Amino acid sequence: MPRFRVPEITVERLSIYLRALKKFPEEKVLSSQELAELVGTTDAQVRKDITYFGEFGIPGQGYHVGKLKEEITHILALDREWELALVGVGKLGTALLAYPGFKKKEFRIRAIFDNDPKKIGIRIEGLIVRSVEKISETLSRYGIKIGIITTPAEAAQDVADRLVRGGVKGILNFAPVRIIVPEKVKLKNVDLSMELETLSYFLSEGTSTGSHNF
Amino acid sequence: MPRFRVPEITVERLSIYLRALKKFPEEKVLSSQELAELVGTTDAQVRKDITYFGEFGIPGQGYHVGKLKEEITHILALDREWELALVGVGKLGTALLAYPGFKKKEFRIRAIFDNDPKKIGIRIEGLIVRSVEKISETLSRYGIKIGIITTPAEAAQDVADRLVRGGVKGILNFAPVRIIVPEKVKLKNVDLSMELETLSYFLSEGTSTGSHNF
Repeated sequence: MPRFRVPEITVERLSIYLRALKKFPEEKVLSSQELAELVGTTDAQVRKDITYFGEFGIPGQGYHVGKLKEEITHILALDREWELALVGVGKLGTALLAYPGFKKKEFRIRAIFDNDPKKIGIRIEGLIVRSVEKISETLSRYGIKIGIITTPAEAAQDVADRLVRGGVKGILNFAPVRIIVPEKVKLKNVDLSMELETLSYFLSEGTSTGSHNF
Repeated sequence: MPRFRVPEITVERLSIYLRALKKFPEEKVLSSQELAELVGTTDAQVRKDITYFGEFGIPGQGYHVGKLKEEITHILALDREWELALVGVGKLGTALLAYPGFKKKEFRIRAIFDNDPKKIGIRIEGLIVRSVEKISETLSRYGIKIGIITTPAEAAQDVADRLVRGGVKGILNFAPVRIIVPEKVKLKNVDLSMELETLSYFLSEGTSTGSHNF
């Protein structure tokens, strides 16, 4: 494990490197410049990112694809299997259950929950929908450490509390609301409309609307 | 408009402030510390974020909710209406069409596309599915400037090229693949499994697996 705290943005880029590396044969050697082009950054950034975790380049040549893939996989803790719980099997929840990235062997959705009596007991993508009342006991029993919230905003905090009581260490929250969790739980908010708002800002850059003068 | 380039992370936080501010009456005044608590940052960070855009606090008191909301809305260019096109009405696309954040008046999905002949012509959430062949001409005709890609990975680049030919200035890409667009087009990749990979890294922090010694 690295000696110091690694910025979240670097961790995210490692994930992008890994994706890019998977397209090359194991035995190939890529320069930091080639890696940079693949992920859309600079070669200085590539070298900086990688040295966060130690030195495993080949001096004067670059990085061995197989070795680098293996290292990044290990750093991201993707050489183990994470079991997940998903709460809220509405449209977004159902879409995520079918999402290719959530069907990899390292992330396996093991239990799904909803509060709609009409949904409880039915099977979606091979999993039976359980009542939200059962979240804590199911998670404790299976040792599930990651929860995904895809409920409407008003249900999200209650669900988060249940996930925490069930012992999760990380939560991916898709509900369009801020939720509060204990400090020991890592929370990632994925707000799909915030992505649009950021885009809106950058699209309007330089197109003065005339009403502002600071 | 601000005089200098604002970091993406600040723009993202503005979006979070805006969300938090909407819960308060217009006439309320919040200190930077109160704002900080609401969005989970420090008061120094709040002051720094806000001064990127000029000074509109009340010295010794804080920020007037109504005024701050108005300013952030303007900064993010949310005081205008953006029309969007969505390409790929599979499970994820359909979920996004129903997503509350994508149904606000400032972001209105105007046209949807798919390449599946069985889907073309049907109506989803009030919109008729058009053929991907029609992307460029439809976007040009309606002046749509933002495209959302929710296709499988292998279709994403072709769709991006069509969106660019149709004149989009920004793309939100949900397909699990890197796409290439001209520099003038702002691209945001939303990779839902990357969010999980980042979480995996942070959950494993400090739990040494014994095989690493750098």
